[in-house]
Amino acid sequence: MEDAAQQPRRRGRPRRDLADADVRRRLIRSGLIFLTEKGYSPVGLDEILRHAGVPKGGFYHYFSSKADFGRVLIAAYHAYFAEKLDRWFLDESLTPLSRLRAFVADAEQGMARHDFRRGCLIGNLGQEMGALPEEFRDLLVSALDGWQSRTARCLRAAQAEGEVASRHDADALAAFFWIGWEGAVLRAKLERRADPLSAFADGFFAMLT
Amino acid sequence: MEDAAQQPRRRGRPRRDLADADVRRRLIRSGLIFLTEKGYSPVGLDEILRHAGVPKGGFYHYFSSKADFGRVLIAAYHAYFAEKLDRWFLDESLTPLSRLRAFVADAEQGMARHDFRRGCLIGNLGQEMGALPEEFRDLLVSALDGWQSRTARCLRAAQAEGEVASRHDADALAAFFWIGWEGAVLRAKLERRADPLSAFADGFFAMLT
Repeated sequence: MEDAAQQPRRRGRPRRDLADADVRRRLIRSGLIFLTEKGYSPVGLDEILRHAGVPKGGFYHYFSSKADFGRVLIAAYHAYFAEKLDRWFLDESLTPLSRLRAFVADAEQGMARHDFRRGCLIGNLGQEMGALPEEFRDLLVSALDGWQSRTARCLRAAQAEGEVASRHDADALAAFFWIGWEGAVLRAKLERRADPLSAFADGFFAMLT
Repeated sequence: MEDAAQQPRRRGRPRRDLADADVRRRLIRSGLIFLTEKGYSPVGLDEILRHAGVPKGGFYHYFSSKADFGRVLIAAYHAYFAEKLDRWFLDESLTPLSRLRAFVADAEQGMARHDFRRGCLIGNLGQEMGALPEEFRDLLVSALDGWQSRTARCLRAAQAEGEVASRHDADALAAFFWIGWEGAVLRAKLERRADPLSAFADGFFAMLT
């Protein structure tokens, strides 16, 4: 889709591909906003279309169903977040543990920027899983596993630098972090404040030494 | 309502009060099942009425709206869970830290009994808060605060017995526990297995010494 948008326009040919790619991107962007804020079940396609400025009936040109749209949104959020983690965790200007601290600080600022209305799309849908298409389950678990393995690599690097005690199992620590962090995001959204995020992060960093 | 059910039946008078109390209880019991499994938004009153064996149209005799019903369910779940915590945390046959371990083991068994389909009603609705009546927010926060203060008391007792290091702030530990535990329940429900619960509990207990 990105490629289609970058192709030179041919004279006399309508920019249909470009327009399509743009509309699809707008739908995904609006979908991500609504799903991080409200979750999947309570959100109607109508409000997403309205927000994206796409006429009713246009939706099925891009997605075969709400579930198909949901799958695309999970993949888009997973990719967006994995890239965010890589940006922090592969930043060699920081020590490994400072990278994790920088991610936490960035996540806090991100939630504050949206007045703690938006949480984690994967956590939201994970919580709703009892009412979602069963095929979402593996996609959600994979997303968390992907973030967790990145975090484990960062923690192993921190162990190599002596920032995290070697007695810890980095994989177990990373699993612990993501289990608790999703709880912290949930609670920050509920309380509309950063305290649960910093309370969890402070406890987590204190246990690493 | 419980009192009404225990009043002696007067001759010739239909057992209206008794029947009412019973129907109301059945609606609450069914509501708790659906909300712990699916959350609030995706659940229709129809399926709750069907499950409770209450005719359509009967609902508004007992509750003024779905939101009114939701408030009653939050209060019922809060009370049920506070009682469960008191049962464990006030059990003087166990050391204070063993009481917390016993609660964790009981919660794991409880989730396993329902094949990890049911989570925490407060966690579910907390996650959905962006799409719920705003008046639910304080009720959900109060429930968590109530469980947290019980847990802090138990941890302080564990400190008095030397089971938890005195350098810890029991209130901060209890907050940390509930932030992470809600994340663990979410993840156990998503993965349909106990591992996230034991992973979080193991990490938590390891940090207390």
